[in-house]
Amino acid sequence: MKLLHVGPLGHERPAVRTDDGTLLDLGGVLPAVPVTPEEIGLARAAVDQGRLPVLAAEPGTTRIGAPVPRPGKIVCIGLNYRRHAAETGAPVPDEPIIFMKAASTVVGPDDPVLVPRGSTKTDYEVELGVVIGATARYTDGPEDALTRVAGYVVCHDVSERAFQLERGGQWDKGKNCETFNPMGPWLVTADSVPDPGALGIRLWVNGEKRQDSSTADMIFGVGEIVHYLSQFMVLEPGDVINTGTPEGVALGMADPKPYLRPGDIVECEIDGLGRQRQEIGAA
Amino acid sequence: MKLLHVGPLGHERPAVRTDDGTLLDLGGVLPAVPVTPEEIGLARAAVDQGRLPVLAAEPGTTRIGAPVPRPGKIVCIGLNYRRHAAETGAPVPDEPIIFMKAASTVVGPDDPVLVPRGSTKTDYEVELGVVIGATARYTDGPEDALTRVAGYVVCHDVSERAFQLERGGQWDKGKNCETFNPMGPWLVTADSVPDPGALGIRLWVNGEKRQDSSTADMIFGVGEIVHYLSQFMVLEPGDVINTGTPEGVALGMADPKPYLRPGDIVECEIDGLGRQRQEIGAA
Repeated sequence: MKLLHVGPLGHERPAVRTDDGTLLDLGGVLPAVPVTPEEIGLARAAVDQGRLPVLAAEPGTTRIGAPVPRPGKIVCIGLNYRRHAAETGAPVPDEPIIFMKAASTVVGPDDPVLVPRGSTKTDYEVELGVVIGATARYTDGPEDALTRVAGYVVCHDVSERAFQLERGGQWDKGKNCETFNPMGPWLVTADSVPDPGALGIRLWVNGEKRQDSSTADMIFGVGEIVHYLSQFMVLEPGDVINTGTPEGVALGMADPKPYLRPGDIVECEIDGLGRQRQEIGAA
Repeated sequence: MKLLHVGPLGHERPAVRTDDGTLLDLGGVLPAVPVTPEEIGLARAAVDQGRLPVLAAEPGTTRIGAPVPRPGKIVCIGLNYRRHAAETGAPVPDEPIIFMKAASTVVGPDDPVLVPRGSTKTDYEVELGVVIGATARYTDGPEDALTRVAGYVVCHDVSERAFQLERGGQWDKGKNCETFNPMGPWLVTADSVPDPGALGIRLWVNGEKRQDSSTADMIFGVGEIVHYLSQFMVLEPGDVINTGTPEGVALGMADPKPYLRPGDIVECEIDGLGRQRQEIGAA
């Protein structure tokens, strides 16, 4: 099942996208896109019973918002693709690298992304986002951990490399600028993603393909990541994990590195999870 | 004005603490402790007009919750006291070091703190917490930034040093364990804290004073910090900034370093902002 928010910023309605692309209005059943098993069950029952009206708007004519507009937290995994670790000159990590992204960075999948003031190294990173549906605290192992996953979503982990790496210490400084986490278009429930470790993942800048990989190149898989994180923090329904980006980021290229500039168009895509498109602006 | 939450976890009511320690019930006026100027104005008017009933419970007989139980984000400043930077062997930073703490770490000021499973280096850090009351985005300077501050609170930035420093890269891994951010007892509004850069700040473990300093030892002051952060992220009402800890943490001591163990009692205090008391337990 594909779940999404549709409508102007701050006035989104939850909806279900059917296989033929029709949007069904979930607003009479739930206030927002569901993430817990109970709420997802309510949505599924409403679909199965044909109780949801078609949204007045045609697909493509209204804005899509982030499926989880205000995550409790966004936990990010660094250097989690083998070939991305190689391109940045970093060794393959022995265990997941964790950093954090604030909920205030989240925007819709097609909303503008703003280059921060003073930035010269705004970079792109397409990532598989994991949405938590049930509390994960000291899970028993990767298989147990996977039962806490509500579903998957495309996330764009926009990063300012000078802020991240050249301004005194911790990566978070380059990860939390406004608009730095486009999310969506849809939350695809876990039952519709049989193997999150075998999804094509791609990103284009101005039509040029820059990232083209598979989640099979991930060092730590989704179950391992959720299990690992649950040893260090409590994951709660509505939390989001950005699981790392494949090779092809501007940071990894030869000089002059092709960082993002106002006017650029970025598109991100993951098999089965849909496609994003952002125009780059200036803060 | 001192604002707080009183009651069992999940059933707290907002209250005002008067100068003589009486708790006035704010629950009929506001759903939670206010942080915006408008909401704080409502609370102040209700107090001034004598419209708030005395809470049935006597002070000291009911649990106090965190004044901001679910911040939008918690931004932390690392190594922000001169003598703390020295004790850890780190140079004085040229600009603030930023890391992040998830809202799910927040507990009340007297709630138990849990040593995580597998932890051997759980450490204490008393900090001045800054609560944001108005959006701060590219503020003009420290003075402008200070106008966005709702008030101040005691925060205990509990830290697991092995997770933070020995487990692969970023500090966040040792900062986000459950119960790792006791906050409170009160949010003291900014008008009642004439100089946040001149407050005594202290912490005890089992009655032994371990940290005893003043916010005057901070490298970057509150206005500078808020202004600086607003260049890298948007601060929103209800966000919290932990402004760093003074010297005296276990990490900075001679071996065997006195890390926290179950059964220990930690007390934290800042002049005018009240006192916390946590019993250390095990996760």
